Amino acid sequence: MKLKDIYATSLSLLTDLYQLTMAYGYWKQGMAEQEAVFHLYFRKNPFKGGYTVAAGLAYAIDYLEQLRFQEEDLVYLASLKGSQQQPLFEPAFLDYLREMRFTCDVDAIPEGTVVFPNEPLVRVRGPLLQAQLIETPLLTIINFQTLIATKAARVADAAKGHKVSEFGMRRAQGIDGALAASRAAYIGGAATTSNVLAGKLFGIPLSGTHAHSWVQAFTTEQEAFRAYGEAFPFDSVFLVDTYNTLEGVKNAIATANELKQQGFKFNAIRLDSGDLTYLSVEARKLLDEAGYTDTNIVASNDLDEHIITSLRQEGSKVNIWGVGTQMVTACDQPALGGVYKLAALQQKNGDWTYKIKLSEQLAKTSTPGILQVRRFYTESGYLADMIFNEAETLPERIVIVDPVDSTRRKTIAAGSASKDLLEPVFVKGKLQYTPPTLPEIKAKAQQELSSLHESIRRYLNPHSYPAGLEESLHHFKIDLVLKLKEKGNSENGEELL
Amino acid sequence: MKLKDIYATSLSLLTDLYQLTMAYGYWKQGMAEQEAVFHLYFRKNPFKGGYTVAAGLAYAIDYLEQLRFQEEDLVYLASLKGSQQQPLFEPAFLDYLREMRFTCDVDAIPEGTVVFPNEPLVRVRGPLLQAQLIETPLLTIINFQTLIATKAARVADAAKGHKVSEFGMRRAQGIDGALAASRAAYIGGAATTSNVLAGKLFGIPLSGTHAHSWVQAFTTEQEAFRAYGEAFPFDSVFLVDTYNTLEGVKNAIATANELKQQGFKFNAIRLDSGDLTYLSVEARKLLDEAGYTDTNIVASNDLDEHIITSLRQEGSKVNIWGVGTQMVTACDQPALGGVYKLAALQQKNGDWTYKIKLSEQLAKTSTPGILQVRRFYTESGYLADMIFNEAETLPERIVIVDPVDSTRRKTIAAGSASKDLLEPVFVKGKLQYTPPTLPEIKAKAQQELSSLHESIRRYLNPHSYPAGLEESLHHFKIDLVLKLKEKGNSENGEELL
Repeated sequence: MKLKDIYATSLSLLTDLYQLTMAYGYWKQGMAEQEAVFHLYFRKNPFKGGYTVAAGLAYAIDYLEQLRFQEEDLVYLASLKGSQQQPLFEPAFLDYLREMRFTCDVDAIPEGTVVFPNEPLVRVRGPLLQAQLIETPLLTIINFQTLIATKAARVADAAKGHKVSEFGMRRAQGIDGALAASRAAYIGGAATTSNVLAGKLFGIPLSGTHAHSWVQAFTTEQEAFRAYGEAFPFDSVFLVDTYNTLEGVKNAIATANELKQQGFKFNAIRLDSGDLTYLSVEARKLLDEAGYTDTNIVASNDLDEHIITSLRQEGSKVNIWGVGTQMVTACDQPALGGVYKLAALQQKNGDWTYKIKLSEQLAKTSTPGILQVRRFYTESGYLADMIFNEAETLPERIVIVDPVDSTRRKTIAAGSASKDLLEPVFVKGKLQYTPPTLPEIKAKAQQELSSLHESIRRYLNPHSYPAGLEESLHHFKIDLVLKLKEKGNSENGEELL
Repeated sequence: MKLKDIYATSLSLLTDLYQLTMAYGYWKQGMAEQEAVFHLYFRKNPFKGGYTVAAGLAYAIDYLEQLRFQEEDLVYLASLKGSQQQPLFEPAFLDYLREMRFTCDVDAIPEGTVVFPNEPLVRVRGPLLQAQLIETPLLTIINFQTLIATKAARVADAAKGHKVSEFGMRRAQGIDGALAASRAAYIGGAATTSNVLAGKLFGIPLSGTHAHSWVQAFTTEQEAFRAYGEAFPFDSVFLVDTYNTLEGVKNAIATANELKQQGFKFNAIRLDSGDLTYLSVEARKLLDEAGYTDTNIVASNDLDEHIITSLRQEGSKVNIWGVGTQMVTACDQPALGGVYKLAALQQKNGDWTYKIKLSEQLAKTSTPGILQVRRFYTESGYLADMIFNEAETLPERIVIVDPVDSTRRKTIAAGSASKDLLEPVFVKGKLQYTPPTLPEIKAKAQQELSSLHESIRRYLNPHSYPAGLEESLHHFKIDLVLKLKEKGNSENGEELL
């Protein structure tokens, strides 16, 4: 195994084994090409928040475009053995995979859009075998980037206009854990990344300064600052806490004074430990007294939206926030928990059978149909989202029903402005979508967040944005649940509720 | 950006920008090739545990072997601008990077070894510029895999001999977040992975069955089981909770009865929701009554070491554990927090200057020297670990001092058996190490874990394994800390403690 081999040849095996065993089963049953509809969605906003920022679609498109079983993949699959040492798959099935080309329709909500629980971020319609196979990679890619974009939006919100620099690479979960996190954090609100490869691959602006080791490598702190200042006369950030923070600030000021004649611009200092409020206030005084009123104070050290808010409320003088671990791993909730559920299956006569996955909790029961999300808005922002079945005619009077608490309803006035969120991405397997650039996605996210009422953007105990099922879909779902439970009852005489 | 481009060409830019700005600064100061020693270590066992399992070295070796700036990297670096739109780096520096070849000595503790706080997992000795540059990728790779191997060891420990299957891909942090997690989880104790690409790349055994969508795709549950059983007569695991778990078990049994004549082996059922203890006990009764006493019960649903223990204590009849999110993201602590610190720098006359990073907490103060770890053991297991400075002569009487609480000491009897943990990996940039195979690493981890007293392996409130500083190193470090603080005092008249 070489790192470069991981992505170099084929990602077609980037999936769970059960997707392939099911594929084999569908193929054997003659069901492989039966038309199916799956939805990828999550059930709760992460971080107990009021919204989620969709991200990852560009990666998902890239995965789907390259999806094609290569000889080396088939050789590997042919080598898999069952418990009796028999080959797990028949050769004819592997031939089927060899010839298989991706032919699904994929509709998705563009990256940077704010989204809410139960809304399909991706809808896949196509041959059952193919639509099932791509479940795992779609989830891996979209779960993670959506999680991190959302976290970054919260952190940036807490920074209230101050710049947020992402530098989490060293604590990220693997190489692509770092790269994908840098991309998603940038979408959500980080201004820069420290990850040079992310800069090269995605065009994200970079930022960085020096480490404690730089200071240690010199005999005195001031010598270290001087050497760094000479190398970067306009872009130095002096890290001042290697030995003693306020002494470090004084040494930084002395160095700046010394280098002033050479045109040095005293850009910033960075605090990385200790009481950031106290130290930033004292550092600000020292800098201001020395005439460096424009010199920035960068802070880092396990920051997140809550700590940044608390430091701001305490009157800290930090005005640039360096955020690492908490943002790139989403420490307080490191997985989004998105799911991918079968919602409809076409019968041979062309009729759709709607499908549902029951659960003891209604919140975890999937929604049947071929779903689309309609967002209603006014000039002042977003009003409500309606999940509806595209295959059915909408009633005239639009009522949105909360999927968990059916007494929470919202009636939409006739003629309200709206847009449908899912856009065509692949049509019959052909890419029909021009992904926006990363800066465009970032700008969209900012625009989207500003369209949410601040009570929804709040990151502690937010208001709940109305996002629910169109009323007739709600009734259809409830009836289907009751019918399935009824069937269970009649067969086994037990109460299922 | 294409996914395949991420690793395909060069990972040399997989680092923080500040490593390159420092590199530039060292180069400008004529310090680029000054010999330096850095240690990669962590300060606390993760998960409030008593031990840590080292992992990730094979990836790190692969990264270091390919380290060489390519033209496309240099073109990108040349394009970087400072705040005044001036090029960030001089062309002569980029020429230096172009010619640079990795020439460091790298010593490391082999994967699968149990390790403890403050022990260098990796020691890098070589030109300051190079040794600094590789900080971030080494941390990214080793932090994450070590974290996950440790989590998996705890989960496998809780399973007490039952098989643990890892299937976390869909919730992992990015594509390599999934791949590297599958690798590390296998090292730590998972028996199989669901990730087919990890199977192909690393040779990890695969396992997998079917999803709820398989059951939904058929008109009845029994039809679904029958179709799956026909496809996999020896390797079926029926997922029984799509509609109603115990009804599902009955349907699975009916299907097995039906297929028995065809040679079907009723391998297992899987429970994925609800009260796993109650349901597994009831399922076991149904299976046993039907004569399927060998049929396994697999459970999944956000399991970790604590939930598995609790289910076992409650008398659950589960005997195969499927673990996903909690293992591959290490949900309760998604980052290890390893650091990489400068510990010594050679002066022009060949003498070493030992380096230290102060902190308000002694626990966060780095250890100076050129460190090695000596492990003392008896036939019944591991006794204690001693971190010592290889460049100094050891005293005759070996005393190990806890780095945080210096009153905790352990004297080692003369003639005790011992081995040194750091092994040469690169010598002057040339790979001198044959990495063990993945099964060998896994076997080593099992052997290592069994050499720890069970009170240390305990995953709630474990005993603390004696791992500390050799006494003369301890004194040297304390003296250095006091001297540096003294210097601070005399210069600024403040109390620093």
